[in-house]
Amino acid sequence: MHAKSAKTQVEIHELIQNRWSPRAFDPDKEISQDDLLALLEAARWAPSCFNDQPWRYVVCVKAQTPVSWENALATLVEKNQQWAKNAPVLILSIAMEHFNHNGKPNRWAPYDTGAASLSLTLQATALGLIVHQMGGFDADKARAFFNLPEGCQPMSMMAVGYQADADVLSDDLKEVELAVRSRVPLEQRFYFGQWPSDLVDSE
Amino acid sequence: MHAKSAKTQVEIHELIQNRWSPRAFDPDKEISQDDLLALLEAARWAPSCFNDQPWRYVVCVKAQTPVSWENALATLVEKNQQWAKNAPVLILSIAMEHFNHNGKPNRWAPYDTGAASLSLTLQATALGLIVHQMGGFDADKARAFFNLPEGCQPMSMMAVGYQADADVLSDDLKEVELAVRSRVPLEQRFYFGQWPSDLVDSE
Repeated sequence: MHAKSAKTQVEIHELIQNRWSPRAFDPDKEISQDDLLALLEAARWAPSCFNDQPWRYVVCVKAQTPVSWENALATLVEKNQQWAKNAPVLILSIAMEHFNHNGKPNRWAPYDTGAASLSLTLQATALGLIVHQMGGFDADKARAFFNLPEGCQPMSMMAVGYQADADVLSDDLKEVELAVRSRVPLEQRFYFGQWPSDLVDSE
Repeated sequence: MHAKSAKTQVEIHELIQNRWSPRAFDPDKEISQDDLLALLEAARWAPSCFNDQPWRYVVCVKAQTPVSWENALATLVEKNQQWAKNAPVLILSIAMEHFNHNGKPNRWAPYDTGAASLSLTLQATALGLIVHQMGGFDADKARAFFNLPEGCQPMSMMAVGYQADADVLSDDLKEVELAVRSRVPLEQRFYFGQWPSDLVDSE
């Protein structure tokens, strides 16, 4: 199975170093109930502003809730469907726009939801699972399919499962799968003391 | 030092289980350059929509950029200053509102920035450091102090350092520090197949 360790100046924890977002999923390998529960527990214990826990997740397991899983797949743009169709679990992450305790707008809801999703993702890495999050889905379809209430924002569709060999992918996707992972240089995202006046973004 | 392990139905990875947000910082223990770099590398390799890396971080080290650190502290609401004043490092997380590649609005910017901040935080846990993120700061002051450009959202001020005994805190903060960590029941945040029609939030 293809691995893509992050190239860093100093050592970082192996969970963070080894996490990446493959597209090659094994369609025949289901996730155990305990492992699925561990993913959700990891998200559940993420930090949030006022401990509001503004995240919500709709979990669609192909083997258990096939209609929901099909609907989740159908929300995706076509190029994501090509590979996500092999993921045994699709999970929609959702951010609630208002605080529970006072009903006021919660500007940290997407931020906290992103943290919870990463926690879920790193737990997946710890269990030998892979997660690939997608912004390429139709949020309105998701609202309709999953009966979402007012005042929430569908954020990401997460494909979850076991990694397969890159050969399961079409040639163009396989090329992406095997490409080197990249990030812009550290100094373009992390500044000491204040925002740099001479910043030129390489992208 | 007080520990607060998450209480979960199934085992989760120790990094995720043991992370929490203490307020008791050791004012005399600085963070090494390598450890600080590891925190930033961990954030740097977080996933993001289109690999845009929409996060920015302004890192204020008391011993190295004291004016910036004082300014960072001054952005905080008074009750956060009470304890954050002992943190040797304060880091402002910022989300860019537009994609680099096409200048269009990036609705995932806070979501991805939250993920990067959690990655930083879990790396801190791995290094025996603690992180406490705060939404309680004056974003306009932060914009002015750090010379932030248009089109960005200051998201959170992160206090980073080594944990101290809860006794360094005032009595009311000590009580919070020693309180049991809590989350709402799993079924109030994680749904199978679709949004539940009979949901009653306990908060």
